[in-house]
Amino acid sequence: MSAQVKAAILGASGYTGADLVRLLTLHPGVEISALTANAHAGKPLGAVYPHLGYLGLPDLVTVAEVDWSALDVVFCALPHATTQQIVKTLPKHLKIIDLSADFRLEDPAIYAAWYGHEHYAPDLQPEAVYGLPELYREQIADGRLIACPGCYPTAVLLALVPLVRAGLVTTEDLIIDAKSGLSGAGRGLKENLLFCEAGEGLSPYAVGKHRHAPEIEQEIGKAAGRRVLVNFTPHLVPMSRGELVTCHLRLAGGATAADLREAHVKAYGNEIFVRLLPEGALPSTQMVRGSNYAAIGTIQDRIPGRAITIAGIDNLVKGSSGQAVQNMNLLFGFDESTALLQPPLFP
Amino acid sequence: MSAQVKAAILGASGYTGADLVRLLTLHPGVEISALTANAHAGKPLGAVYPHLGYLGLPDLVTVAEVDWSALDVVFCALPHATTQQIVKTLPKHLKIIDLSADFRLEDPAIYAAWYGHEHYAPDLQPEAVYGLPELYREQIADGRLIACPGCYPTAVLLALVPLVRAGLVTTEDLIIDAKSGLSGAGRGLKENLLFCEAGEGLSPYAVGKHRHAPEIEQEIGKAAGRRVLVNFTPHLVPMSRGELVTCHLRLAGGATAADLREAHVKAYGNEIFVRLLPEGALPSTQMVRGSNYAAIGTIQDRIPGRAITIAGIDNLVKGSSGQAVQNMNLLFGFDESTALLQPPLFP
Amino acid sequence: MSAQVKAAILGASGYTGADLVRLLTLHPGVEISALTANAHAGKPLGAVYPHLGYLGLPDLVTVAEVDWSALDVVFCALPHATTQQIVKTLPKHLKIIDLSADFRLEDPAIYAAWYGHEHYAPDLQPEAVYGLPELYREQIADGRLIACPGCYPTAVLLALVPLVRAGLVTTEDLIIDAKSGLSGAGRGLKENLLFCEAGEGLSPYAVGKHRHAPEIEQEIGKAAGRRVLVNFTPHLVPMSRGELVTCHLRLAGGATAADLREAHVKAYGNEIFVRLLPEGALPSTQMVRGSNYAAIGTIQDRIPGRAITIAGIDNLVKGSSGQAVQNMNLLFGFDESTALLQPPLFP
Amino acid sequence: MSAQVKAAILGASGYTGADLVRLLTLHPGVEISALTANAHAGKPLGAVYPHLGYLGLPDLVTVAEVDWSALDVVFCALPHATTQQIVKTLPKHLKIIDLSADFRLEDPAIYAAWYGHEHYAPDLQPEAVYGLPELYREQIADGRLIACPGCYPTAVLLALVPLVRAGLVTTEDLIIDAKSGLSGAGRGLKENLLFCEAGEGLSPYAVGKHRHAPEIEQEIGKAAGRRVLVNFTPHLVPMSRGELVTCHLRLAGGATAADLREAHVKAYGNEIFVRLLPEGALPSTQMVRGSNYAAIGTIQDRIPGRAITIAGIDNLVKGSSGQAVQNMNLLFGFDESTALLQPPLFP
Repeated sequence: MSAQVKAAILGASGYTGADLVRLLTLHPGVEISALTANAHAGKPLGAVYPHLGYLGLPDLVTVAEVDWSALDVVFCALPHATTQQIVKTLPKHLKIIDLSADFRLEDPAIYAAWYGHEHYAPDLQPEAVYGLPELYREQIADGRLIACPGCYPTAVLLALVPLVRAGLVTTEDLIIDAKSGLSGAGRGLKENLLFCEAGEGLSPYAVGKHRHAPEIEQEIGKAAGRRVLVNFTPHLVPMSRGELVTCHLRLAGGATAADLREAHVKAYGNEIFVRLLPEGALPSTQMVRGSNYAAIGTIQDRIPGRAITIAGIDNLVKGSSGQAVQNMNLLFGFDESTALLQPPLFP
Repeated sequence: MSAQVKAAILGASGYTGADLVRLLTLHPGVEISALTANAHAGKPLGAVYPHLGYLGLPDLVTVAEVDWSALDVVFCALPHATTQQIVKTLPKHLKIIDLSADFRLEDPAIYAAWYGHEHYAPDLQPEAVYGLPELYREQIADGRLIACPGCYPTAVLLALVPLVRAGLVTTEDLIIDAKSGLSGAGRGLKENLLFCEAGEGLSPYAVGKHRHAPEIEQEIGKAAGRRVLVNFTPHLVPMSRGELVTCHLRLAGGATAADLREAHVKAYGNEIFVRLLPEGALPSTQMVRGSNYAAIGTIQDRIPGRAITIAGIDNLVKGSSGQAVQNMNLLFGFDESTALLQPPLFP
Repeated sequence: MSAQVKAAILGASGYTGADLVRLLTLHPGVEISALTANAHAGKPLGAVYPHLGYLGLPDLVTVAEVDWSALDVVFCALPHATTQQIVKTLPKHLKIIDLSADFRLEDPAIYAAWYGHEHYAPDLQPEAVYGLPELYREQIADGRLIACPGCYPTAVLLALVPLVRAGLVTTEDLIIDAKSGLSGAGRGLKENLLFCEAGEGLSPYAVGKHRHAPEIEQEIGKAAGRRVLVNFTPHLVPMSRGELVTCHLRLAGGATAADLREAHVKAYGNEIFVRLLPEGALPSTQMVRGSNYAAIGTIQDRIPGRAITIAGIDNLVKGSSGQAVQNMNLLFGFDESTALLQPPLFP
Repeated sequence: MSAQVKAAILGASGYTGADLVRLLTLHPGVEISALTANAHAGKPLGAVYPHLGYLGLPDLVTVAEVDWSALDVVFCALPHATTQQIVKTLPKHLKIIDLSADFRLEDPAIYAAWYGHEHYAPDLQPEAVYGLPELYREQIADGRLIACPGCYPTAVLLALVPLVRAGLVTTEDLIIDAKSGLSGAGRGLKENLLFCEAGEGLSPYAVGKHRHAPEIEQEIGKAAGRRVLVNFTPHLVPMSRGELVTCHLRLAGGATAADLREAHVKAYGNEIFVRLLPEGALPSTQMVRGSNYAAIGTIQDRIPGRAITIAGIDNLVKGSSGQAVQNMNLLFGFDESTALLQPPLFP
């Protein structure tokens, strides 16, 4: 179909790249025209991902080999920092959907402080739109360079932004106890990601130092209208997919857990990918595994004046590749849910 | 869309029922008109399967409450034996796709010997078509009552029938060492299915006594043209989905592993759901998880005159609900792969 | 050896009963004289726990069959409420080590509120000693009826009591985000404990309603000298053993994370089973799996004036059976670490 | 205690090295005098294995730094090939217990064919004793250089050698379908060992090419009195510990499954670490996890004239480090079970 959107996936050998392939092969309006993986150039995709063989896709090439003129959209699923250097060389007719952290932080000083080097494409940064459709749908539709949120920020911001905007919670002591499966750490060879190390065990990591903290603070800060610092305490859970953020909240102005639930309904009542749980129900990652859905619930704390809001997503779908496709749908005028309606896979 | 096929799922609270829902919600030509679960009648599906809430499906009802006249097809995902009693009462305009074992065994004596009671619907048995599309496509398309194969038989028969038909392997000592994730055992509350019992452990079960043995023997026997007994040795693996059968084969008439691979190509070269691996590649359940694909590979044994053929499937999809949908597509003239093309979910 | 302590384990078919057997078989000063499991009376232990066959232990009997006069100590690993009814009938020469919740709560009104019935042995309650050796060593050694702490309270109280006693943290908003493997829920047949339900997923449960909350509050309250309410938010993690409590703390009186670490050193510097991590190190359940050790670490929060203290234990050992044996060692004058020095099992 | 055996562990940063430490710390007659790990020299053991910190052990050193004169026994838990080069330089007063494959194969030509290079210490090879105590107890006790069996061969040979010796099974078509947890593959950084790759999946590997095949064939061949080739088909199972071999056997001379069970009783009736299951019972890895026990059971096949013998072990204990300690006990005259009697860890 000549009218199809022509897409490239840069970094197809990573987990987010693979999940982009998985989703886009089901998209009736998109053709996967190029797949890059510098270390595997020349191989079929099935050589690095046997489950994605047999799909008739183009072989892997290097980034240098891509014919940009034949493309409409580029998904960047590359490591941090390389993305900036590649994106700034790309022709301007291309829509860019970046799954890395390279364009998420609006303030270059904060970027430099957390990533250890100056931004390589500061001229492009102002153009970037933070790609959380439920919060920035219009800006995304009008954008060209979309910075998809991190997986944790996706869950946290869906849970907290409506509450902060409505002034229902204080922002002085936002406690975000986060848990993730291991795919969030990528396919790199690290000892702590081995089955024998991670299996049958739970371990906190990067406490107080995780790079998703400034991203969360940027967006919560915008919602609050002032600078915010958050407690962000991530843990590795022995599962591949899934992420849950347990947000311990101090209520403001006499608000109750019911008020928080109502604020979520106001914000997301019409959102197809946000599933709001009724009083008494608790989200789990099982509810959303393999899907683009987020599940959110709020419980009254035992401590008066406090509540607990919990959000669960699949870190590779709503937290990454699925949200990227959702953004692409907005950019090209497809129905926002195209290729994203598969129900969760359970068990 | 009034022209849609109206479907009921009997037994929607089991895992195969749930996976039918998951797949059929993506089918453009089918409407889920009724969902039964006697013990949960009156509840929404989301009460028993939170991941399947929010889909706008009808509430659960009892089998007695179903209006059969409004339906075109009934998927039976019920326990063994009950199925026979229900199916024999159903009006004849209905197509029946049975996921239980109730109509798989052609010989009522063998049924009685393995299931401990006489068949309750012997008059219907001759009408049943064994629902393995790659082997019985035409008969299924013309059928009314489809007996979907068991999960293990699906993998074993895909692997072995072409080899037996071609006379490439002996049938005196077919050794089938089988391994399955736990969803194959269903959602019933059994101690050995608890996470703490099954996790971090591997256990053989029902060795020499598994009810899939006579089913395999029936179909291998038909392919061989004589009665066959097989070694069938299943093991429980600590994973939810996935099944692998490792078939240890004695070659006949000077055949080689390459001849076996060639026989598979002849049989399945045009099959969309059978992925044949080249020499040296080995199937795994990771290649097919969450999908309707089967992966098959053959390796030369170290012992001269022997070979090893391995097949992997997702027991709930190609081994059950996906194959049931594939059969429905054949029955109603849909493209056979409709709603079944999602790539595997990995990681 | 006639001088050995004669022990009975009531409830040997549960997980804590089994772990008591595992540990006591290695104790040179103890003889397992009786094992009860009413539903399995007459069977060898190997029939309910194959891994514990072949050890030459007495067969399972009913509680009614036990000859109390031949015993020195009784471990009660029974369901809640039954324990009270049995313990009050036991002869007074017996030392009782109770692993249930039946004697943990000092205030019968709080017990009744959380357990739904009046205490069945209120006369015995005042005699009970809360069996956390690191906090109540002397009282335990002099006691007769030891109420072993719950698994979560063990981890939480080891982490927090020294901090609260020293006035280093406020007690108005103690946030305890807790995570546990599934063995903490026991061997009962519940759907959410099935491998297929719990595997590859993370789910909060009993938020604000868990019965370990009042137990934590009782002991924190004693340390603080006033009534305390805590946030206690447990999650089920897909692993069998292990528990981690992440305590989000507001510092008092200008204290720092270093002060908290120092308070732990003061409290536990000589404790064999408490492993205090240096600055920058984070506890994990992998560090303690299968052992009686607890690992504790403290990290400065990003939010000024806050810190995070994390403690990890094996819920079945230090959180239950190991601690019970530790208490027995105190009661009978054995070296406190007898039979408890196995290093953790990793991987 | 000056009379203690002084031991070094070479390669303490691997999984077998770690499990040696875990077991030897409980041995009353052994002192761990040196631990080597060239890449980590200078660090405490707790830096590479947090669960083994706090035990008062010597820091890691290089092999070059070890004072051999102060030692009685050296455990070599080094990669293949390096072991030969190091062992040939060691003083002769040392007992050597090698956990690698370097001295297992008696025929240097077979070694060279499977390991890709000539043996580096062919003069030492004739001195090596194959360290399977249940088969070679006397030779081990009198030996100096013990070649501990591979994990798979341990399970296979325990299961099959008595049957082959008694002539109860044919050796022309021994089918060994083997399954292992991931710790058998070591701590090296390989993509297929990542949690996300191995979790929730089952994959055969090295079919027909695994280096344990010639080792099995050597020992089965000795038992049979002639050269033997076996089918050896290993699979990776998503668990850390545990190994199960399912041996599909053709019976010889009219033997029955009962005869096989009886042969096992004759061979192992007095063996403390071999647990023989009665008719109808099936071994599992759960029965032996974390312990030095092996579980063996035999079932009549559905095919007349065939039987299935299954053996389960913990690959790191009976399959490696535990067996090494068992050999050390024999070498130094300790009770053979010293430090090895911990019951399995379940759940």
